[in-house]
This record gives sequence, structure tokens and C-alpha cells, in this order.
Amino acid sequence: MTLTRRDFAKLGALGLAAQFVPTLDAQAPEKRIGFAVIGIGRIAGHFMPATLSTTNCRLTGLVSGHRDKAESTAAKYGVPQSSIYNYDNFDDIAHNPAIDAVYVALPNSMHAEYTIRAAKAGKHVLCEKPMSTNVAEAESMIAACKAANVKLMIAYRCHYEPTNLKAVRLIREGALGQVQAIESSFGFNIAPGEWRYNKKLAGGGPVFDVGIYSLNACRYLTGEEPDHITANTSVIDHDGRFNEVEENCSWAMRFPSGIVASCSTTYGANMPGYFRVYGSKGWLQVDNAFVYEGLHLRAEYKGTKLDELNPARDPSHFVAEGEHFSHCVQNGLEPKSAGEEGLRDMRYITEIYRSAGISI
Amino acid sequence: MTLTRRDFAKLGALGLAAQFVPTLDAQAPEKRIGFAVIGIGRIAGHFMPATLSTTNCRLTGLVSGHRDKAESTAAKYGVPQSSIYNYDNFDDIAHNPAIDAVYVALPNSMHAEYTIRAAKAGKHVLCEKPMSTNVAEAESMIAACKAANVKLMIAYRCHYEPTNLKAVRLIREGALGQVQAIESSFGFNIAPGEWRYNKKLAGGGPVFDVGIYSLNACRYLTGEEPDHITANTSVIDHDGRFNEVEENCSWAMRFPSGIVASCSTTYGANMPGYFRVYGSKGWLQVDNAFVYEGLHLRAEYKGTKLDELNPARDPSHFVAEGEHFSHCVQNGLEPKSAGEEGLRDMRYITEIYRSAGISI
Repeated sequence: MTLTRRDFAKLGALGLAAQFVPTLDAQAPEKRIGFAVIGIGRIAGHFMPATLSTTNCRLTGLVSGHRDKAESTAAKYGVPQSSIYNYDNFDDIAHNPAIDAVYVALPNSMHAEYTIRAAKAGKHVLCEKPMSTNVAEAESMIAACKAANVKLMIAYRCHYEPTNLKAVRLIREGALGQVQAIESSFGFNIAPGEWRYNKKLAGGGPVFDVGIYSLNACRYLTGEEPDHITANTSVIDHDGRFNEVEENCSWAMRFPSGIVASCSTTYGANMPGYFRVYGSKGWLQVDNAFVYEGLHLRAEYKGTKLDELNPARDPSHFVAEGEHFSHCVQNGLEPKSAGEEGLRDMRYITEIYRSAGISI
Repeated sequence: MTLTRRDFAKLGALGLAAQFVPTLDAQAPEKRIGFAVIGIGRIAGHFMPATLSTTNCRLTGLVSGHRDKAESTAAKYGVPQSSIYNYDNFDDIAHNPAIDAVYVALPNSMHAEYTIRAAKAGKHVLCEKPMSTNVAEAESMIAACKAANVKLMIAYRCHYEPTNLKAVRLIREGALGQVQAIESSFGFNIAPGEWRYNKKLAGGGPVFDVGIYSLNACRYLTGEEPDHITANTSVIDHDGRFNEVEENCSWAMRFPSGIVASCSTTYGANMPGYFRVYGSKGWLQVDNAFVYEGLHLRAEYKGTKLDELNPARDPSHFVAEGEHFSHCVQNGLEPKSAGEEGLRDMRYITEIYRSAGISI
């Protein structure tokens, strides 16, 4: 399929350009950034197909403790059997020139170790959020990547997602006047048997896993760093899921300009994930702001009324973040969501827990 | 107009019963509770016409510092000129047998004084929210009404409003499963020249005036009293409006069951006022939850989907609260939103401010 620039402009107007971008200016396989995916779980299941729709990414390696699963995945994506690694021989990726980078899709507690080992193997790192389970790990990840002169990007999808970016742009352009307050929440009713409520693996509960989206959104929407954070956590359901981590958290933040934010997260109820921004001249809301599709922007300001449902489908967010990362690697640029961005959230998460009387 | 019970049932099904209730079982004027309205301002402008639509209230007195305004209002509502009082001769209402009760519609700082003076004059008291500007005043109001053996009700409209009541009922019936988290906000962009940002008159800023709706809603939605409250306040607009009170506040609460709440309020942006409740089996949201009309309930739980716009028009909320108050007075019952309810909110408001480093 080929598209003229005019065709592309039309698709853009329909909001459909994102799905077709990869067919424009697609790089030859050998020019693309070759990724080894570490951990073939749920999130990798979004990232791997996304690479096929990018201009500049390809899958060139797999790291898994499950050889069978790795072999069938390798076959599906054309990864040579010789580029399948396990957690013991992982460091051998250093000698595989087809692997330029790793995508760390492991439980949170393993992010630091595999980021640092990848850096030592000379590979660039795209690491899932939350960056780590504490501030010290995050700092050591940044240091390791600096020392190895490799790029480190945290996979904050929303930094590269058009509806979130439009919300940010409207705010920066002053559409809402002076922003005063933001509300945001994100959560889900967690199934039994998940690693996510094992504190050693996850670092904490929904604050780490999904609350981080609201926290991060308040930061990119304001363009500021919070100077006061205060929180409550709780456990309601004593059914074995929350022996180690919180079930619910509500927190309040203040930013240096005076903008206030109120947020909540849970592992005990479905919270579709949204933010609403109130300004002196109007408001703006994105529903499904943090999920893979169905992002819905509504706004009213200065006589303008917006109601825009983003038609992009999963895995478009992963395409966008993969392309940004590869572009940065190819051009020696710093990723927009570099390690320092993840570190900041780790500091704020620590503060949320500290305020609620929990140490991490 | 007369309605049979069957007609009434049909109207009820259409959600229209509220507007027609007054024509059923309407009491003769001399049987109704006679109100003297203290302070003929904005809120009294809703209450006074509402009395005409009730079964059991009537306007029998006016208290105002503006004789002209009082006279024209008296003429409109058939209040005798002899039942117009000012703030100096107010205590003479004791000798007016047509006045059973007062409706205190004054700036917050005057609630305590006029509630106590009315009680001493032997009159029942319906007092606007916030009850007072601090806990001590609220306690003295309760004590004065107890000593005088008169009823004291705080005008929490939403306690008597069908959409709010339906939300409460759905939660109590377990429609949402275990409630985990609540979000709520309410605010507006305040005009210059309002008494509401004069700390001496108002007690504080939007927390007192509109944040109290979210605070109170979290309490009636959960049926619990918060055991932890933590907050931020800020001033962004240094334009003279916020020399004495906060412009914004975000706060987080936890209830004994573990339910968490995140709330915000502002005087710097229009926040239409809403709450959203997340449970293990579904969610429920009321938009325009705290304003006079347009209340919109949406919910999804256990295969049920609700989308109900309440067609009731202003002043239906005032009709409902007036009828409840008069019914309590006539039957020696304690109002659902008695003084103690207002006192609780004063304690929580004090805690919100204390947490934000503000003493009141």
C-alpha cells in the first residue's frame, strides 16, 4: 500500500493517520532499531505487534523463562531461534549485533536489574512504568545507562498519545485561561493470582501500577512539579489480595503556581481512567485517558465546544512510543520520557506512601 | 387542580411528582408553619417562592436592613407590613404569633447570632449552610435551640433531593457492590464584590461555601464519618479577591470502612458540581449534583445501565427542604439535617484547613 501526501492529509483530517504512518518512510529492516523484548507477558503482547506498524522498530530478540512460549513468539515475528535468551544467559545479548535495545516488560521489581544488565551489555533501554520499586533503583538505572552511554526511556505511552497531547497543547495555549484544579483517577478490580499485589514484585499497590498515570498526567497537564502531596490509603477487602499492598488511595497535590489536584486509584473497582481540568475560562476532560483506545476529549472554553472520540486502535500508543524511542536512538536525542522522568514519579510515589504512613 | 392517587402515581413514574406534591394535602394557611426570612438576598430569592409550592409552609415575616426592599417583597408575598423587622427590632418577633420559625439566609458569620436570638424568641430555626464560621458557634447554636426547645435544621438541600437520595439508596441496596472510592468537586469563578471572600463574613473561602457540598455528599453517600482528612489550599489570582481566603482546595478523605474520597473546590473556575462513586460491581455518577436543576444520574452495575435527567425545576429543592422542616416542627420530629449534622461538617472543615496550615 502506498499513499500520496494528499491521501495522507485526508486520513489525518479523519484522525486515521496514526494507523497508516508506518507505511510512509518505513525504514529497511536492517536500518531499524532491533529490540529484544524481556518478559513475554501482557504488555509485551501489545508492544510486539506494534513494532510491525512502526517505521523504525523491529523485533530481533526475546528473553523469557518459558522456552516454548519464546519459540512460538519468535516464529510469529521472524526472530531467529538463536536470538532467544533466558534470564541466565541474558548478558550474551552483548554479542548479538541485531539487538540494539531492550524493552523491559517484567514485573516492577526486575526493572532495575535488567535495565542495568542491558546497559552493561551496551544496549539502549525502553523500560515499562513504573520505572522501579523505589528511588534508589531508579537512580542506579539512570547512572548505569549514563555510564554505558545508552539511552534510557520510560514507557509513558501517554506522552506520545495524540489526545493527551492535544489536552496539553490546549492548556499551554491558554484555551482554559488560568488552570485552577485537576481531577484524575484510574483503577481496576484486580483478579486473584496477579503478581501486582505482591509487594516484593510490584513495590506497592495501585498507586505504583495505575495511580502513576494520574500522577504523571497532573504533571504533564500543568507542566509543573508538585510541591505538596498528601494522601490516604486503605484496604477494604480482606480476601487475600491486599495482604501486602494498599487497595485504595486518594491523594491531593499542589503545584508551585497554586494549581491543585485531587486523585484516586483502586484495585477494588473499575475506574476507567480520566482527567478533568478546570480553568478560569473553561474546562477540558479526557475519558479513557490512559487506556489503549477509546480516548474521548471534551472541552468547553471561550465559546468553543469540543467532543472528539479518538478512533485510533490499540496498539497505536505502542507504535508512537516505539517510534519516538528509536528516533532518539538513531539521532542521538534524549527521549521525552527519559529515566529522570520516571525517577520524579518514584519520588512522588514515595511521598504519597510516606504521607499515608507507608514506607517503601 | 386535583389529582387522583392513580394520576399521582403516573406523575411519579415520569419523575414529575415533585412539582405537583404541593397541590395534594395542602394545609390551610393558618395551619402552615409561618416563616420569617432573615436576609432578603440571593438564596432567600429561591426559598420565598418555594414556600408557595409547599403544603405546609408560608411566609409570615421579613427581616432586612433595607426597608424598601422588604416592603416590596412583603407586598408580593402577602406579608403584613407590621411583620417586617430590621436587625435592631428583630427580637420583637417573639411577640408575633404568625411567625413560628425563621429561615436564616444571612452571610455565614451572622448565622450563629440570629439562630440564637431566634431561639431565645421561641422560634424554630432553618439555617442556611455552612452552619457557622467555626465549631464553637455551631455548638452554641445547638445549645441555644435545645435550651429554648425549638427545632434547628441546617438547609442541606441535597438531603431532600430525589436524585441525590436515589444515589444513596442504590449504594445502600448494594447495587455497586463494595464502594471503594468517591470523587467530588464543586466550585465557581467568583465575581468581584462578593461578601463570600471576606473572611470575617464567610469564615473561609470555597471550602466553606461550595466544598461543603462535596464533603457532605461523601458523608451521605458512604453513611460514614471520615476518620482521616488531608488537604492543600492555594491562591493563584492575586487580583484582590483572595487576600483573606483560599482560592482553591484539594483534599483527600478516608472513611472507617476504608472508602477513600478525593475532592476539590475553587473560586477561580466553574466546576459544575458532581460526584462519582466506584464500587466493586459498578459505578454511579451524578452531574450537576448540587445545583438547583439539571441533576443527571448515570450508573452502570450488574448489567443495569441508568441515564436519568431529573426534570424538576428550581425551586423544587427548597420546596422539599421547607416541607421536611415544617413537618418536623408540626410533629415534634428531629430534622434529618439537624444542627449536629452542620456541626460535624464544621469540624471536618476545620480539619481541612488545619491540614492545609490555616486556622479558623
